[in-house]
Amino acid sequence: MHSSASMCQTAADTASHDVPEAERLMADVIESGDDADTQATSVAKIAALYHLNAGGQRIRSRLALDSAHCLGLTTRDGIALAATAELLHNASLIHDDPQDRDQVRRGSPTVWVAYGDEVAICAGDLLLSAAYATVACVSCTDMLPSLVKLVHSRITQAIGGQCAEFSPAPVHLFNTDVYLKIATAKSGALLGLPVELALLAGGYRGALQTTRATADSFAAGYQIYDDLCDFEIDLARDTAAPVLNIVLVLKKNNGLSIRDAWESAQKLCLMHLEAAASSTDLPRQSGRLFREMANELHARLKDKCIQ
Amino acid sequence: MHSSASMCQTAADTASHDVPEAERLMADVIESGDDADTQATSVAKIAALYHLNAGGQRIRSRLALDSAHCLGLTTRDGIALAATAELLHNASLIHDDPQDRDQVRRGSPTVWVAYGDEVAICAGDLLLSAAYATVACVSCTDMLPSLVKLVHSRITQAIGGQCAEFSPAPVHLFNTDVYLKIATAKSGALLGLPVELALLAGGYRGALQTTRATADSFAAGYQIYDDLCDFEIDLARDTAAPVLNIVLVLKKNNGLSIRDAWESAQKLCLMHLEAAASSTDLPRQSGRLFREMANELHARLKDKCIQ
Repeated sequence: MHSSASMCQTAADTASHDVPEAERLMADVIESGDDADTQATSVAKIAALYHLNAGGQRIRSRLALDSAHCLGLTTRDGIALAATAELLHNASLIHDDPQDRDQVRRGSPTVWVAYGDEVAICAGDLLLSAAYATVACVSCTDMLPSLVKLVHSRITQAIGGQCAEFSPAPVHLFNTDVYLKIATAKSGALLGLPVELALLAGGYRGALQTTRATADSFAAGYQIYDDLCDFEIDLARDTAAPVLNIVLVLKKNNGLSIRDAWESAQKLCLMHLEAAASSTDLPRQSGRLFREMANELHARLKDKCIQ
Repeated sequence: MHSSASMCQTAADTASHDVPEAERLMADVIESGDDADTQATSVAKIAALYHLNAGGQRIRSRLALDSAHCLGLTTRDGIALAATAELLHNASLIHDDPQDRDQVRRGSPTVWVAYGDEVAICAGDLLLSAAYATVACVSCTDMLPSLVKLVHSRITQAIGGQCAEFSPAPVHLFNTDVYLKIATAKSGALLGLPVELALLAGGYRGALQTTRATADSFAAGYQIYDDLCDFEIDLARDTAAPVLNIVLVLKKNNGLSIRDAWESAQKLCLMHLEAAASSTDLPRQSGRLFREMANELHARLKDKCIQ
């Protein structure tokens, strides 16, 4: 699965002016930890920075910053958690791309294309490790063990989703239920994490379950939206490797025409985005950016037709 | 680089009876963090456990346990740090093997051979993440930020060493100095880490530099010892992909015969092991297992001849 749905800055995105600070922390942590006399690190480091500098929407960074802001965390803590969530997402992209043989991301050659598979593995490892180094920058050190364990838990789930996608099961076994399970494991785990981290750091452990449910609905909607944008590209790839696109899943499993499958996927997407937008309130409106993002995608998709 | 030099249990290895406890913690942390309804994780998890169950000497686990014991840390903390160091080492093996196209490890097919490159990436990620989850189990939570940052620093250095090994530089540029830099970055960083973690947890930050120097000497000796055992295999592979074996490096760079290169490497190995064994004392003898291991390898190699 890949991601091409762009999310504009929304009204609630008040803390997004701190995104550049989170970027700086990410770069600092990637730069640090190196021996001055070991030039060796530079290839993985250069590749990691190449990937980060290619852009991206920083949705997870913005989610962490806004939630942290709502919950009254310090700016520094919000930045640390934003960097953690964003680094993990980017580590997963660098490692997923060679697995899926995706060649272009954010308009540039993917890391494995530009630097080779070996460097891509090392660059992804570097970002995964850096994510833990940034979470260790929070001021509430008494919460650090819980934060680290939450990060590990969500990484485990995201890995599960990724593994399921290239499992040896024949593609016709991928029905809508399996698709949604993979989407929520793979995307929901890391989309919910920034908000969960802010809640946990703020002492709102009880709200994690609701957050995860909202993140799963949003992730399902987001992933389907993405598939709707990409189905023509994925259709062209269909003969080579199995591609997990909900339009193709619905077409194959329900014997639908392309048009009917597309419209069926559209309905499913709107339903999940509505669920995300109408989910239970999180403490101190810390889930408001999720809601706004869900509403924005919903508005964009509602009147869209198959092209 | 690979590792086949086996280390027997030494007299100082008093805490090694806790190795199975560290193994249990490793397995627990790999098992945890999973959604009950996501079967998906199982492939990466199964592959990670397959790798761990194939054996290994658990040198890093034993080093952490013995140092922690010497420094008076709690057994629980020693176990947490042992699991961290051992998980990191195994994560690096799982990710290095497909990079080096090594097919067999510990007598079993490597993870990428048994499960595919994609699963190997995910399984290595899982162990890398699990390493941070285990360090978060230490009781001294005030030290956790420093411990996490130390782990990240050593991972960065190990990645640097690994990257240098498959850098596009022609193999004839790998002289002895470059070889030693790679060996110490790649192996020294993760061999010193268990002792460094114990020292840092015990409040002996000032001893980290000496530890790292000892670890580097030991790593250089250990790696050369390994190369001496493997040079015939590596010689056979020499025509296909460049292999970084000190015997071949000395042969090519110094225009030596195989026998002379082997004996030259043997001398170099003994020199580094002697440096490791005679290094400055670490607090409360926390480096004694390093010293014993260095002495053991030294004794084994001293009278060895090229086969």
